[in-house]
Amino acid sequence: MSGNPFDGEDGREVTEPGVFSAAEVGLANRNSGAFLEMLALDITPVGAHYLLTHFDVPLLEVGAHRLVFDGAFDAPFEMSLEEIKAEPQVTMPVTMECAGNGRTGMEPRAFSMPWAYEAVGTAEWTGTPLAPLIARAKPQGGVVDFAFEGADFGYDKGVGHAFGRSLTPEELADLDVLLVYEMNGQPLLPQHGAPLRLIVPGWYGMASVKWLTRVTAMTERYQGFQQVGTYRFRQTAEELGAPVTEIRVKSLMVPPGVPDWITRKRRLSPGLVRLQGRAWSGAGVPVDKVEVRIGEKWHAAKVEKPLGRYAWAGWSLDWDAQPGHYVLACRATDAAGNVQPMEAEWNLSGFANNAPHEVEVFVED
Amino acid sequence: MSGNPFDGEDGREVTEPGVFSAAEVGLANRNSGAFLEMLALDITPVGAHYLLTHFDVPLLEVGAHRLVFDGAFDAPFEMSLEEIKAEPQVTMPVTMECAGNGRTGMEPRAFSMPWAYEAVGTAEWTGTPLAPLIARAKPQGGVVDFAFEGADFGYDKGVGHAFGRSLTPEELADLDVLLVYEMNGQPLLPQHGAPLRLIVPGWYGMASVKWLTRVTAMTERYQGFQQVGTYRFRQTAEELGAPVTEIRVKSLMVPPGVPDWITRKRRLSPGLVRLQGRAWSGAGVPVDKVEVRIGEKWHAAKVEKPLGRYAWAGWSLDWDAQPGHYVLACRATDAAGNVQPMEAEWNLSGFANNAPHEVEVFVED
Repeated sequence: MSGNPFDGEDGREVTEPGVFSAAEVGLANRNSGAFLEMLALDITPVGAHYLLTHFDVPLLEVGAHRLVFDGAFDAPFEMSLEEIKAEPQVTMPVTMECAGNGRTGMEPRAFSMPWAYEAVGTAEWTGTPLAPLIARAKPQGGVVDFAFEGADFGYDKGVGHAFGRSLTPEELADLDVLLVYEMNGQPLLPQHGAPLRLIVPGWYGMASVKWLTRVTAMTERYQGFQQVGTYRFRQTAEELGAPVTEIRVKSLMVPPGVPDWITRKRRLSPGLVRLQGRAWSGAGVPVDKVEVRIGEKWHAAKVEKPLGRYAWAGWSLDWDAQPGHYVLACRATDAAGNVQPMEAEWNLSGFANNAPHEVEVFVED
Repeated sequence: MSGNPFDGEDGREVTEPGVFSAAEVGLANRNSGAFLEMLALDITPVGAHYLLTHFDVPLLEVGAHRLVFDGAFDAPFEMSLEEIKAEPQVTMPVTMECAGNGRTGMEPRAFSMPWAYEAVGTAEWTGTPLAPLIARAKPQGGVVDFAFEGADFGYDKGVGHAFGRSLTPEELADLDVLLVYEMNGQPLLPQHGAPLRLIVPGWYGMASVKWLTRVTAMTERYQGFQQVGTYRFRQTAEELGAPVTEIRVKSLMVPPGVPDWITRKRRLSPGLVRLQGRAWSGAGVPVDKVEVRIGEKWHAAKVEKPLGRYAWAGWSLDWDAQPGHYVLACRATDAAGNVQPMEAEWNLSGFANNAPHEVEVFVED
């Protein structure tokens, strides 16, 4: 029997490369990744979008739910879901990726949810823009931050807190932040934040607070655990580090051929095969180029028009596969000139790994 | 770089207790478990039902899909999805559990999907009974097995195969097998077998073949890999073993209080707390009794009427929680007198572990 897990130390064993603890496996069982074969679809089906849930999923009553605007507002108010639905409605395809995606590709590895490549998805989110509602509540002159709090509560590193994040007035002005109540044309599911969540397009998923209950205008910077205690690029546990924000340029491939059940390595017949996948970048910057490595050589793929400003673009490349053993890879470059690095920049929490996706393939004789 | 994964050996490292390989974590990322907190709901929401996918999810066209009845039938035929939907429609709540649920609780551990407790869910399945369609195809006198084949293909232990399972004429007569095309009132999602899957109520999930394409009447027993090469209770790899069939009696608890993000251990305030959960058994046998262990003592919980013949029953128990550290547990007994064993019977593949669910709880001072 281990000690009190609420002291912030329990369960954080030192981990060796390629070897995982039962707690990490528990997180992987609980949080779900996308199916890479579904990268063939423009929109990730309901139930196949990745999910990262810090605490328990709160099961909230739609009819009783209120969104409270409080703190340093001159005209604070609250809204029911019905009132939010009566506001102007927009639907937007957004590619969302977990900041921890690729964590297992960094060594030494952070002790957290052990994602490889699969924490990404694209959904059609329906809701209303947040900025006009914030304006309606009339932020006072000294406001420097807006805090967003969810109904989910728990402990991380010994600190009890409701999941919360913040955005500055400048960030809010730059980003097309939505309050959403539908996903892929259906009411939000409990596990995706029902009845109301934030969507911060172009940022990693931690910013898109689920089960949203409160928007607080603050005259000092928000110090919530999920804002300052984690989701930071750190080299050591002592420093504050730079905040994790925009999604880095990245691409993934639909694994060609058929898999081995355990290893997920692929087998295919020789001949023409269409390699395909998706590529995206944060902050509304479009993807310019996708290259695919076959053997030692990189080949330019055809890149389609993205689904939307904040959504991925499809790419494809026809390959005349010859017998042999390959480690295929893909890498994208965005219009701002950012390119996926061959090796991820290490950080303590294993955030934002955008090294190329590699797929091991055996082409039969 | 490891060798050819299709020889059946690659990736199956010897594993120590409590230490997991990257391939196991990959399986846990890809396959998704239920949220234990959602055991508070009668029906598991779409996208929160457990998923175990052997190979890739095939993305099939609904309009082009055909179900073929072939082999030793006197009147073989095929049906479109539209024709299947025109058959008598039934909706049935069914609790489904993966045969590998609880695998990590058996040592030495099988090298496969590392489930703990979470591979279970209850959905409302809508479709049509299979038996009348089989009767319409007129099985020949010597038929001893009906094989069901899915559209998903891959390799397991070096053997390439489409996922397939079989049921004998006697099993078919005993079980209320359905061909389903809806789940929770919505068209089946790709990852749940769209556009058509089998539901074998009361059996572990491997029998409920997804992406169903073919029903073959056979005059010899079906020898498909998933029927004879796995899903068997074996002590050694050499024996055939008894087939895994009906779900064993089992219960789970909604973890009370709030979690630690990593360990999932629970913290709660002292005072009255309602412990609750679900209990079920296979083959349409109802659950008779649920007991909850608090400290050293077992207490009888209140058991509700089950949702249906093949679906779980809710249970609850009010607990006046006093400060301290507890490992709560629950165990069910069914009407046939089967009771959850305190320790699971070991088998090579880690199937059908129905030892009690344990939840570690800290009640504050």
